[in-house]
Amino acid sequence: MTVTTVMDTGRVLDDLRELARLTGGPDGARRVCWTDEWSRAREFLRSRLDELPVDISIDEAGNLWAELAGERDGFVIVGSHVDSVPAGGWLDGALGIFAAVEALRTHAPDSPPVGLRLVDWADEEGARFGRSLFGSSACAGTLEIDEVRDLRDRDGERLEDVVARYGVELDRVHESGARLKGACAYLEMHIEQGPVLESRGEPAATVLGTCGVERHVAVFTGQTAHAGATPMDLRRDSFAATAQAALAIREVGFRHDGVCTVGGATSEPGVVTAVAGRTEMLLDQRHLDPEALAAMLGEAREACERAADDHGCEVELRHVWSIPPIPFDDRLIERARQAVVEAGGKDTAIPSGPLHDAAEMARLIPTVMIFSSSSPPVSHTKEEDTPEDDLRVAIEAYGRTVRAAVEAAAGGELPPRA
Amino acid sequence: MTVTTVMDTGRVLDDLRELARLTGGPDGARRVCWTDEWSRAREFLRSRLDELPVDISIDEAGNLWAELAGERDGFVIVGSHVDSVPAGGWLDGALGIFAAVEALRTHAPDSPPVGLRLVDWADEEGARFGRSLFGSSACAGTLEIDEVRDLRDRDGERLEDVVARYGVELDRVHESGARLKGACAYLEMHIEQGPVLESRGEPAATVLGTCGVERHVAVFTGQTAHAGATPMDLRRDSFAATAQAALAIREVGFRHDGVCTVGGATSEPGVVTAVAGRTEMLLDQRHLDPEALAAMLGEAREACERAADDHGCEVELRHVWSIPPIPFDDRLIERARQAVVEAGGKDTAIPSGPLHDAAEMARLIPTVMIFSSSSPPVSHTKEEDTPEDDLRVAIEAYGRTVRAAVEAAAGGELPPRA
Repeated sequence: MTVTTVMDTGRVLDDLRELARLTGGPDGARRVCWTDEWSRAREFLRSRLDELPVDISIDEAGNLWAELAGERDGFVIVGSHVDSVPAGGWLDGALGIFAAVEALRTHAPDSPPVGLRLVDWADEEGARFGRSLFGSSACAGTLEIDEVRDLRDRDGERLEDVVARYGVELDRVHESGARLKGACAYLEMHIEQGPVLESRGEPAATVLGTCGVERHVAVFTGQTAHAGATPMDLRRDSFAATAQAALAIREVGFRHDGVCTVGGATSEPGVVTAVAGRTEMLLDQRHLDPEALAAMLGEAREACERAADDHGCEVELRHVWSIPPIPFDDRLIERARQAVVEAGGKDTAIPSGPLHDAAEMARLIPTVMIFSSSSPPVSHTKEEDTPEDDLRVAIEAYGRTVRAAVEAAAGGELPPRA
Repeated sequence: MTVTTVMDTGRVLDDLRELARLTGGPDGARRVCWTDEWSRAREFLRSRLDELPVDISIDEAGNLWAELAGERDGFVIVGSHVDSVPAGGWLDGALGIFAAVEALRTHAPDSPPVGLRLVDWADEEGARFGRSLFGSSACAGTLEIDEVRDLRDRDGERLEDVVARYGVELDRVHESGARLKGACAYLEMHIEQGPVLESRGEPAATVLGTCGVERHVAVFTGQTAHAGATPMDLRRDSFAATAQAALAIREVGFRHDGVCTVGGATSEPGVVTAVAGRTEMLLDQRHLDPEALAAMLGEAREACERAADDHGCEVELRHVWSIPPIPFDDRLIERARQAVVEAGGKDTAIPSGPLHDAAEMARLIPTVMIFSSSSPPVSHTKEEDTPEDDLRVAIEAYGRTVRAAVEAAAGGELPPRA
């Protein structure tokens, strides 16, 4: 265990509990972006930042920045998101924000060698319009403005109209990218949102990058038939084909040490009295290694075709969405691993299945993340939590990583982005 | 092939085509019970019966009877149903009705040794209120009046109110059972509604009875989890458990020469980004042998439990509905088999997976059915059909079975029901 600490973990926990008191409810966190709840969460964040010698501003994409000047050019970005899903967890996003506030606090007294900038990304969750990573992808230049302009919420309101009420002119959101000029590194802390660290009994870990995702719908077509009148050997059963494919695809995930998920299937006619003539199966595959991801997709396709063949069905794999793996920066990974050990954790580094704002930044700037454990290992629900001892280790590890990144930037190892 | 025939198949086909012209449409047959379409179909049936020396009446359950007197006590019932599902096939039900009309015609000229009674059962399909076999189960005394009284159609109309418009006083429907006093046998012809005969290249077959049915919903409960954040070995995937169970239950059907159908499954949350925490699977199992049916249910239960165990899930099998196998009469089966061969078919006897009015009669009266082939082997759709050559064989086989039953009744082998 460490003897001296660089972070005052208690202050982070106090801030998080106060935020939960102000914006939580019996069903969990209520900080959906582009709502009054979100504004309230940001007001609280501002009240904490106002105590520090920082310049606070909102960029063209609605991201909040707090800039602590350094002794020389360049700065390290510390950030996350204060927005949540409806009825979300108290730590998702907020943990990274208030750990970043504490990082500013610890560096503020003696003017750091390079600058530090906190960013609170707008609409990481996409809870209202279904488009996640809004602010960070706008800043990174990957947001396709015309694809989101007419997205509507459940009340039929358009994204463009709603964000305008928060001062965001949609056609100018890419201008927020100017904020990255001079950035040396991006560092984010987040709750794991999964069971890996809990299952290993570890408090925190370095994140290697975000997994690539291949998302498809497999459509199996057989023949609808009377459940009573059709002998087993004369069936062309699309549900049986789907079941066989789903089990084979599960093995693909094990084989490649990735994840393959069949989230469900919808059959037609979908009644107890008929062999299903048509079944759609939802498929999500993720891996940090692009070659392994491509292999998993190929094997899933083969599994679907074999299952269709075996049951006299046809199958079509429809592409829904994909994103390549985004690895983090090796130099920062090395420092983060050291920081986790110094903070009392083990030298563990894992990929992130979920996407994060860090994935957008990693396209442009050396990036790394620190995970705290999730226990119970659930996310986007009020039950989301992390044991306090684990939080202390993870927050300290994050503070040490920030410190190491500031030193590396000051030493010229992480030059400012032009 | 036969040299002389007992039935004039051409007249049956003419009647069927005329019915289709009067009550069919571009989407198929339109003879839903308790509607004007059904009344029109019955008017046409009456117009054909009016040409014969029969007494026509409607019983307390809305069933239409046409009675041809015989030389001595007792009578053989020939029947089926003229109602259809919406957009149904031209032969389903109607084939049996007009084959029965032809059986009356062939016996009418020379007063048969025992009586013949045609019955057109009301609401075999249950298309409007969801309760099939209405008229025949009322007559057999198995209809639970209070269970159907408040059934509503899609417009919210109550069954009791609607049937009253057709002269049926719901509380008196069981009185129709008096019509069975003196019945020696019940004989029904129907289209197979399945692929067995088509696959064997056979035109017709004797039916051994109706299969028993066990209908359940299996509810698998695992743990909802993030599709990206949850490694394969830490999942409790209810869809994977369902897939494994569905494939094992399929083998149960093969093993026992019965049918086991998983018509579909519904998962929660049922999205591509989550491991399904809960999946409901629809299960239908049928067999003519009660011991085999019980064994199939037991093995399905074991398959569900094993699948749940293998995936860290719980499973509960909820009973939805069941009916025991109803075997037909051995003496009539023997005569029907002979009749099918004499009519040009093979000595084939198969169970019926779908239920029929004959199942209600078989509880009380010696019963048998004749199937014609289905080609294409689909039912409850306008594509339903039987090749004309197959229809000719099946109709002739039915006529010969009726003749044999009349002789057996006259000879005292099938005594009148007291």
